[in-house]
Amino acid sequence: MEFSSKLLENAVDEVSRLPGIGKRTALRLVLHLLRNPKEQTKELGNALLSLREGIKFCKNCHNISDNEVCEICANPRREERLVCVVEDIRDVLAIENTGQFHGHYHVLGGKISPLDGIGPSQLNIETLIEKVKNNKVSELIFALGSTIEGDTTNFYIYRQIQDYRIITTTIARGISVGDELEYTDEITLGRSLVNRIPFDGAIKIK
Amino acid sequence: MEFSSKLLENAVDEVSRLPGIGKRTALRLVLHLLRNPKEQTKELGNALLSLREGIKFCKNCHNISDNEVCEICANPRREERLVCVVEDIRDVLAIENTGQFHGHYHVLGGKISPLDGIGPSQLNIETLIEKVKNNKVSELIFALGSTIEGDTTNFYIYRQIQDYRIITTTIARGISVGDELEYTDEITLGRSLVNRIPFDGAIKIK
Repeated sequence: MEFSSKLLENAVDEVSRLPGIGKRTALRLVLHLLRNPKEQTKELGNALLSLREGIKFCKNCHNISDNEVCEICANPRREERLVCVVEDIRDVLAIENTGQFHGHYHVLGGKISPLDGIGPSQLNIETLIEKVKNNKVSELIFALGSTIEGDTTNFYIYRQIQDYRIITTTIARGISVGDELEYTDEITLGRSLVNRIPFDGAIKIK
Repeated sequence: MEFSSKLLENAVDEVSRLPGIGKRTALRLVLHLLRNPKEQTKELGNALLSLREGIKFCKNCHNISDNEVCEICANPRREERLVCVVEDIRDVLAIENTGQFHGHYHVLGGKISPLDGIGPSQLNIETLIEKVKNNKVSELIFALGSTIEGDTTNFYIYRQIQDYRIITTTIARGISVGDELEYTDEITLGRSLVNRIPFDGAIKIK
């Protein structure tokens, strides 16, 4: 695309560097900003800049935070020794939305993935091992995505903490609530049979 | 979604005000920026802000421009009296990409759409009529989208210039190059029969 304006070209180029946004979408977004009051663009630009300048990561769990320690870790009503290991902050939000978890998190910042050049040293694994060694964890819940990278990461962490007396669990894999058996992929269905749970007649989902 | 950070929440809110971007996508984009070097966010923010501050609209054709008069209008090799009426700058880019048009444009900035509260006075129609009245146009090509709003806008403009001795044309509607007849919608196919053109044996698309 050839633009009649260098300013426009520059803005479209920058927006299209975002993941999943091509030149056409970028142009649509930029033209939208141009049609709207200047204030909207200013607020957008300033929100991004001040986020990037001001953001901190909780020194305890590596969650995104405005302070040294995030709101979850600072909350005295949450169980400190129950730690849920997640990949990134989106998983924290997803679990928080369920309202079913009242422990702490540990955000790894990714999964071990040799193909993408991500090794254990680039993730927040060392601080997690330290927590376990210093007897600050009673139960560790692995809540990484069910992929090869997720399993590798789980196993890597598990190997280093297996000698400490803590409970390690992983979130249940199985058929989604409301799903039909016939449309479930065979690996999930197979796992849900192997890992079947006692039936107690009560509805478990609150 | 409840965020652990006001800065993050603010950034996600601002990004999700863009069209077609929901909260989840906005969060993905913002987290992407956080994972990347600060410079990328700065460049993005500054590109948007300087676009919004510095952008001009060509005083002749209302195209986006860095100067008073856009590159197309300033180009002496383009035919000034052949004017193509388009809705917005994306249409200018699309037509420029074909390399088949060497006249000037007139960017209306939208289409007449009473349902969306857009009347003729909000569009750059008056300056177009002035051009015609001042004998600056020999042919006017209507190149608006083939919708009720497009047709209404064409007709509104046509009524005001029909007494002046200029040629008015509209871009051809018909079956796309490479399309099969059986998959073409009936209105397009019908129009392409009514507006059939002489067959001269030569391939028209360069």
